[in-house]
Amino acid sequence: MPSSPDLYAFVRGELVPLTHAYLHVSDLAIQRGYGVFDYFRIHETQPLFVEDHLDRFYESARLMQLDVPMSREALRETVLELAQRNNLELSGIKLLLTGGYSTDGYTPVPEQASLVMIQQPLTMVEQSVVDRGIRIMSHEYVREVARAKTINYTMGIRLLQRLRELGLDDVLYHQQGVVSEFPRSNFFIVRQDNTVVTPAQDMLFGITRKKVLQLASQQYPVEEGVVTLHDVWQAKEAFLTNTTKRLLPVVELDGQPIGTGKPGEVTLSLLAAFQELEQAALAKASVV
Amino acid sequence: MPSSPDLYAFVRGELVPLTHAYLHVSDLAIQRGYGVFDYFRIHETQPLFVEDHLDRFYESARLMQLDVPMSREALRETVLELAQRNNLELSGIKLLLTGGYSTDGYTPVPEQASLVMIQQPLTMVEQSVVDRGIRIMSHEYVREVARAKTINYTMGIRLLQRLRELGLDDVLYHQQGVVSEFPRSNFFIVRQDNTVVTPAQDMLFGITRKKVLQLASQQYPVEEGVVTLHDVWQAKEAFLTNTTKRLLPVVELDGQPIGTGKPGEVTLSLLAAFQELEQAALAKASVV
Repeated sequence: MPSSPDLYAFVRGELVPLTHAYLHVSDLAIQRGYGVFDYFRIHETQPLFVEDHLDRFYESARLMQLDVPMSREALRETVLELAQRNNLELSGIKLLLTGGYSTDGYTPVPEQASLVMIQQPLTMVEQSVVDRGIRIMSHEYVREVARAKTINYTMGIRLLQRLRELGLDDVLYHQQGVVSEFPRSNFFIVRQDNTVVTPAQDMLFGITRKKVLQLASQQYPVEEGVVTLHDVWQAKEAFLTNTTKRLLPVVELDGQPIGTGKPGEVTLSLLAAFQELEQAALAKASVV
Repeated sequence: MPSSPDLYAFVRGELVPLTHAYLHVSDLAIQRGYGVFDYFRIHETQPLFVEDHLDRFYESARLMQLDVPMSREALRETVLELAQRNNLELSGIKLLLTGGYSTDGYTPVPEQASLVMIQQPLTMVEQSVVDRGIRIMSHEYVREVARAKTINYTMGIRLLQRLRELGLDDVLYHQQGVVSEFPRSNFFIVRQDNTVVTPAQDMLFGITRKKVLQLASQQYPVEEGVVTLHDVWQAKEAFLTNTTKRLLPVVELDGQPIGTGKPGEVTLSLLAAFQELEQAALAKASVV
């Protein structure tokens, strides 16, 4: 993160310059990859859907038996303080909670948990990527403790090289043909009858996923359930959702086109509806 | 690690006081739990079985597509320099290689990999623990990329609380009843006919495991293959192996005794043979 020398971060109780944001090597993130996080957008100084993200952050911590060493109110205040200090036009804040400094390098010491907040400028996906959609491959894998947003990205990062070699954009996890999620995104298909379907097992409950389900249910039949690789190839459309990409059309899986092989109408109408929802949420927040 | 203020560590190219051994929060260990490590004992300034550990460290790095940013010779030299600087009676050195400082918090930048070495005093298992053996439970789980010694201990650390509640010493991983390993140790059984058997799938190739297999084959039939939970309860003896515990008798699994429920003869004879091997290896090294 060398490009932003003037940014501040929050590390174990203190606002410090990001260039001085360090953790001791005894931290259980470094020793044992043990931690959880969450990530949300900041428009100027306004966080987007922050209550949803705080809900999930506390839930991830609970699932990993970690205590957030700060009340929800204090956490929200610190986020706002950091956002005001950094004052970026468009950015993301990452909340990170690790097992913390450990004397034996294995056992978490509750009062030594490391709470970190990092804010970085963010560039949203370019329109040309939305226009053309992305091409993906499948890979058999289920994330450990999939309901928690842990820092474990062993498989996702290991697969980067294969994606580069194949010239593909992302990898969709499945188990015995039943699809779950991408390393950092949720997955949806639109069936031929316009039913919007998303997996409900072995995946993280994405915030964008939740909003899209709400929006879709106003216009289309909606299902949370089993999606197989076969279902994907039979679908009319497919797309992914996450905080930085909103909705992104998926037009090819394992070399076979999905639907017409082009971004679909339902996907694009939901993307437009999501952008309206975003604007409404930000306008509402700015009034308060 | 607050108890050893005078110790030195090696962090990204420099020997520094352990109290100043920090990594920037952009490191992929902190961001994404991405890294590998190895760990070996140091007797005064002599590393034990260091070539085996270096072999495995480079193999773990390769499996995780990381490059060790130092030749094997330079790495060995740095280990010896650190051991001489710290000059502890009995200790362990941890070699750690992470995905390193990343500009986007996800993609490894090869020239930014973080190589870290930490040395800490070590206390071996007390004789009373060997005399009474340990009690364990089973848990269905397979480590990701089990052949690599990654820093991902999500499951092992998450299970610590249950072990504490049940008053047990460790957890043995299995998949559909086929046993693999402990979070930090290998597993052996001794059948009624004195055959020494250890799992060969979904586990890390432990250095102590390798030495014990060599020693056992001089006295007993030896097998690397499938071990089921049922086999464990039918066994005459069971034990675990790792670098800090050598061989430790396992006398109970999921509330049922193994064999007589006491440490067995074959286990204790192999432990004695292993201690002799250790002494010989250290004596040989001190002559060089």
